[in-house]
Amino acid sequence: MFDLNSYLVSKSNYINTFLNKLLEETKNSSRIISAMKYSLMAGGKRIRPVLCIAAAEAVNGKGDNVLPAACAIEMIHTYSLIHDDLPAIDNDILRRGKPTSHIAFDEATAVLAGDALLTLAFQTLSSIGLKNKDNALKWLSIINIISRAAGYKGMIEGQMRDIASENVLLNLNELEKMHSLKTGALIEASVCCGAIIEDSSPDQIDCLKIYAKNIGLAFQVTDDILNVEGDPKIMGKAAGTDKTRKKSTYPSIMGISESRKFVETLADNALQALSEFDNKSDPLRAIAGYIVKRKK
Amino acid sequence: MFDLNSYLVSKSNYINTFLNKLLEETKNSSRIISAMKYSLMAGGKRIRPVLCIAAAEAVNGKGDNVLPAACAIEMIHTYSLIHDDLPAIDNDILRRGKPTSHIAFDEATAVLAGDALLTLAFQTLSSIGLKNKDNALKWLSIINIISRAAGYKGMIEGQMRDIASENVLLNLNELEKMHSLKTGALIEASVCCGAIIEDSSPDQIDCLKIYAKNIGLAFQVTDDILNVEGDPKIMGKAAGTDKTRKKSTYPSIMGISESRKFVETLADNALQALSEFDNKSDPLRAIAGYIVKRKK
Repeated sequence: MFDLNSYLVSKSNYINTFLNKLLEETKNSSRIISAMKYSLMAGGKRIRPVLCIAAAEAVNGKGDNVLPAACAIEMIHTYSLIHDDLPAIDNDILRRGKPTSHIAFDEATAVLAGDALLTLAFQTLSSIGLKNKDNALKWLSIINIISRAAGYKGMIEGQMRDIASENVLLNLNELEKMHSLKTGALIEASVCCGAIIEDSSPDQIDCLKIYAKNIGLAFQVTDDILNVEGDPKIMGKAAGTDKTRKKSTYPSIMGISESRKFVETLADNALQALSEFDNKSDPLRAIAGYIVKRKK
Repeated sequence: MFDLNSYLVSKSNYINTFLNKLLEETKNSSRIISAMKYSLMAGGKRIRPVLCIAAAEAVNGKGDNVLPAACAIEMIHTYSLIHDDLPAIDNDILRRGKPTSHIAFDEATAVLAGDALLTLAFQTLSSIGLKNKDNALKWLSIINIISRAAGYKGMIEGQMRDIASENVLLNLNELEKMHSLKTGALIEASVCCGAIIEDSSPDQIDCLKIYAKNIGLAFQVTDDILNVEGDPKIMGKAAGTDKTRKKSTYPSIMGISESRKFVETLADNALQALSEFDNKSDPLRAIAGYIVKRKK
């Protein structure tokens, strides 16, 4: 039986080694590097880069080739968290059990550390493309996919809608659209990039996109459920904040019990999308299960 | 005699047309697009994209090929202004004679509009690279050069040093290093990208880098001088702010008269760097003169 825990630990170590090496901190290195590293190495779950690597493996590829793309996506995810936590946006003081960037450093540094991680993602992707001259076009595609997913028609538009939705009653369609932009787009990009770098077929990519859409949404619904009934100590962040902010969530619209059933359906859809894949996609299957059961 | 004014107007129109088309605003388009456009089309001088085009022309190229790179650099410049103006950084309420982004919209939107412009720059560069398949490697180089210039070892580190320098006495070396990072790096990238896209020789690039370093610094010294004796009505922003913030500037370190002489020397160095270029580099020469004489 596939051991997801060992898989996640081994891939996270692999990802962390790459990220640590990328941003080498020395005695004389600047405050911006400390701030970038503080958030990047704050013990995130590394779901997106692991998905990128697992998608590459599912189409018979090796994790090594996709590691820079996986890590670039994690940098973009981290930048988005730093900026979301800012006083002007969510005003959160805790993230992954540690003070948020603007608390640990200061607000100006947090803004710039986010900017710097976003910029470093594209520097990393273009550097690896320049080293793999025969695959230059492929790396341009990766940059294009990631910038679209993270941009004003993707993640950033999702964040705008999330901000606008405080104190507003959303219907299910509006809520789903918001999440598909805010978190779904980058999760889908993670899976697609892993597969594209390993020359998957268009059919495989289509299936992986369905997988990604479903686990992306399942992840979000679980987040909403945990915000209602999760343990702040386990999660490393406060619970009950959605209610305080009067945000529309799956539990607030369809109730906790229906939300749980919905997560199960989404996970089933994700597994269904992988039905033509062999056992090399077991990590992707296990991740779908993990997302349903996670406690943090 | 070369007419710089007509040249700047014609190139600015060309740049503005591209930028306007890139971000089409419709009745139903989102708030983030309005905010991105508000700052991007706020009547900036377009110095960086014009330099990119002029450098391309100086090495016998055409402006058309480099336009996407020129405009990507302008997006990055604009994002940096939006974030610099934030309450947590410079807390400026006026930029180019108009309310800054966080005043015209709100702080959350300003943070995200900056993020979105930075991301769109890389989307634009990768899109054009994918359309010019034979030049994929060249466009990866452009993405790499721009991301390095804008990143944590370039513009962002410069901004960190600028923030840290309030109420601190810098010496001339420290001041020059700060400016070479904060504004010099992106100006140098503008000129280099224009030349690289048009297949200039390594010697030409070396000369253009010297040109860029000198006009970049001249631009900054002039900014410092204008902050002392410029007309706020002409500049569209307040004067005297450096003194209020107790910032080290060229006038504060070497006096106004020496600062003016220094600008002249830098402009001469810039012209000297172009001595081997023919009259196709007249726009670059004229820009060096303009930077010395500008009133805003």
